[in-house]
Amino acid sequence: MNKFSTQPLRGFSDFYPEEMRVDKWILGKIREVVEGYGYEEWNGPTLESIDIFAAKSSEELVTEQAFIVEKVKGEKLILRPELTPSLARMVAAKIKELELPLRWYVFPNCFRYERPQRGRRREFIQVNVDILSHDGLYADLEIFNIIVDIMKSFGVTGKQFQIRWNNRRFLDELLLMVAKVPEGLKNQVYKMIDKRDKMEPAEYEKWVRDTLRDDAAADRVLQIGSFHDINVLPFDNLPHEFFEYPGVKEVQQLTEMIKKAGLKPYCTFSPEIVRGLDYYTGTVYEVFDTGTENRRALFGGGRYDNLIDLFSDVQLPGTGFGLGIYVLELFLTTYNKIPPEVKLPDRSHGVYIAPLDASCLLLAIKVAQLLRAQGKQALVGYDCRKLGRQIETASKRGFPYVIIIGKKEVDAQSVTLKNLQNGEQQTVPIAEMGKILVSKT
Amino acid sequence: MNKFSTQPLRGFSDFYPEEMRVDKWILGKIREVVEGYGYEEWNGPTLESIDIFAAKSSEELVTEQAFIVEKVKGEKLILRPELTPSLARMVAAKIKELELPLRWYVFPNCFRYERPQRGRRREFIQVNVDILSHDGLYADLEIFNIIVDIMKSFGVTGKQFQIRWNNRRFLDELLLMVAKVPEGLKNQVYKMIDKRDKMEPAEYEKWVRDTLRDDAAADRVLQIGSFHDINVLPFDNLPHEFFEYPGVKEVQQLTEMIKKAGLKPYCTFSPEIVRGLDYYTGTVYEVFDTGTENRRALFGGGRYDNLIDLFSDVQLPGTGFGLGIYVLELFLTTYNKIPPEVKLPDRSHGVYIAPLDASCLLLAIKVAQLLRAQGKQALVGYDCRKLGRQIETASKRGFPYVIIIGKKEVDAQSVTLKNLQNGEQQTVPIAEMGKILVSKT
Repeated sequence: MNKFSTQPLRGFSDFYPEEMRVDKWILGKIREVVEGYGYEEWNGPTLESIDIFAAKSSEELVTEQAFIVEKVKGEKLILRPELTPSLARMVAAKIKELELPLRWYVFPNCFRYERPQRGRRREFIQVNVDILSHDGLYADLEIFNIIVDIMKSFGVTGKQFQIRWNNRRFLDELLLMVAKVPEGLKNQVYKMIDKRDKMEPAEYEKWVRDTLRDDAAADRVLQIGSFHDINVLPFDNLPHEFFEYPGVKEVQQLTEMIKKAGLKPYCTFSPEIVRGLDYYTGTVYEVFDTGTENRRALFGGGRYDNLIDLFSDVQLPGTGFGLGIYVLELFLTTYNKIPPEVKLPDRSHGVYIAPLDASCLLLAIKVAQLLRAQGKQALVGYDCRKLGRQIETASKRGFPYVIIIGKKEVDAQSVTLKNLQNGEQQTVPIAEMGKILVSKT
Repeated sequence: MNKFSTQPLRGFSDFYPEEMRVDKWILGKIREVVEGYGYEEWNGPTLESIDIFAAKSSEELVTEQAFIVEKVKGEKLILRPELTPSLARMVAAKIKELELPLRWYVFPNCFRYERPQRGRRREFIQVNVDILSHDGLYADLEIFNIIVDIMKSFGVTGKQFQIRWNNRRFLDELLLMVAKVPEGLKNQVYKMIDKRDKMEPAEYEKWVRDTLRDDAAADRVLQIGSFHDINVLPFDNLPHEFFEYPGVKEVQQLTEMIKKAGLKPYCTFSPEIVRGLDYYTGTVYEVFDTGTENRRALFGGGRYDNLIDLFSDVQLPGTGFGLGIYVLELFLTTYNKIPPEVKLPDRSHGVYIAPLDASCLLLAIKVAQLLRAQGKQALVGYDCRKLGRQIETASKRGFPYVIIIGKKEVDAQSVTLKNLQNGEQQTVPIAEMGKILVSKT
């Protein structure tokens, strides 16, 4: 008979226990940080109606990149490509009961039909951390603080990553009032700035000039990316009231708050950061590797002031980020921040039980039950191989102790306990074994 | 503008933090038990090729019940309705490297397009626990032991649940050699026995008699369900060599092992247990509520001796169960085994920080950072409401401590610490607050 392929579908991954432990370690670190900020875990369904994505997400997310199920003719369901529409739907459903601020996080698997490449899979876990409240820039600052704490929890420093942040309101003001981009070309200019990092400089310049057909405006747009201080701008035509514009003021205030909260080493004001998704309205941010290994943004997020307007008349602002863990994993690997022992099973409370023949098995099972009741991890070698082979297995699998059970032990209702770290061995009554087994630390 | 519905798709669920905590509590208990047996967590992709399900699973699983994605014309992908085919594929892919026995568990979300009903959703988490090894009945016994320990970890007793177990090999022998069912009708008889519990007795009897058209055979088939001891069978025509049949011997041996391992109060030999899925070959089992609230099986599993034969020529036997957690949750609710505090956030290390006005916010943020570095959970009330309101919020959300920061505290670089359990309040320098905050236990 022909056999089926043992490989997963293209762009999908199998998680053997070793890989699983790496993911769990990464998620565990992130969980610890966000719970320290009082965030609570939620989740939505994997399938949603495509309509709530079509209305707000980028178009390619619901066309080429979408995995669609059509169980009933005409009702298109989408495997969630991101979580924000579900967040909006769920919050809107209980807007009257939920008490603000909402600090929520979720570790969902998301789906995008893209060309698989380094760190990009068709199914991926995307950590989402959101704060929904009317706290404005303080909420933005809290999110920056969380990002910094997450990165620091992995042992990464501000020399290795930077939060590059901007403000959509500010960028609007800059484009319309300073660069004098016509309103009708604004979205096109946004798109160009967004692609800037991925293009050759000459090619980018040509695109900007050809699109704007106004050299003064193009000169100013081309400056975006070259300055990182709101108080030192390379424009000689700033309007008199420029520093009264709401977006400009927000940038100034957040700059000051970042400094006072001690986050300056980790944050760079970067007016060239746009973020593709349409629903952002205020502060936006992307986290970058400062080295050359990982050129794309590691992850990003931003403020959305009209989050739930598809579902409710209530205005509820929020800010948050989505972090794909496989890209983060590559980054951490680059800087050698995943300790090798993360891949090994935790055997610190482990005891391997080695029965010498089948007549010893039931005592072995009983001993294992007793040990588990004491919080130990106990594994029985049912195949009763030769003792040397069993000890080899136990040692290779990282067990600190082996309990040997032969006829002698069955008769005496005792166990022989071997400490694999120092080789010591002793025979004790079953009732006393708990006292001798000390957890490996 | 018309608003979108805030409800999830029919049969799907939203998990607000409260529901999420119940699921996490249930999964945490199960995780603790299986890790005590040395099981390691794995996972497969959510989407698989439909072919590997079509070849082994029941037909309705890949037709009516399947959620299908067809991204490339003619290539049908299925949202996994169960995990066993992925397990087989992954194990086959690394059969030469993986060292037996494999003790693996996984908490996947699975998908079935069924009529939603009590405990049955279209997306559900199904705990899978499997042991792949040549240890035969000892592996079966270990799985029974795990099931018992899981149930006991929730405080449930053998009076409230029973593992009803059978053996497919035994049932084959009983049907063919004792009941004299013709080979060609065997699968049909299996199907009838499987539906027995869901039918009126008279209706069931008529179906059996009409199908077999042989009253002697039908009489014997109708006995199945009435006896629970392999050594006391209600048949007067047992063949001379009956107790030498491999299936009969397995049932006798496992009966004895269950007794010696102390599992008898939790297990009932039940020849009427069939299990729908086709790939089972030896011991099969279903866990039942002994009361009347939850009549369907809570969950079940069995032995599959040809698990990986779709993918490999290697013969690898295994046994394991799949446990849908929403059915378990209903069962636990029936017996009042989910403590109400499970639904509340863990605030045992929590400190609510209440700044009195905006000028105090940056110190509040700094204090929060210091507390988190000490392992506390710190939440800042950025909106600076009146102190009474902030204390009310902190108390309602379960925080044991509030730290009050006003102008006085900013000037002195101190904090005022209020213990919400006893109302005590004191002002201390920032450097000393860690000593005073004792975790609520």
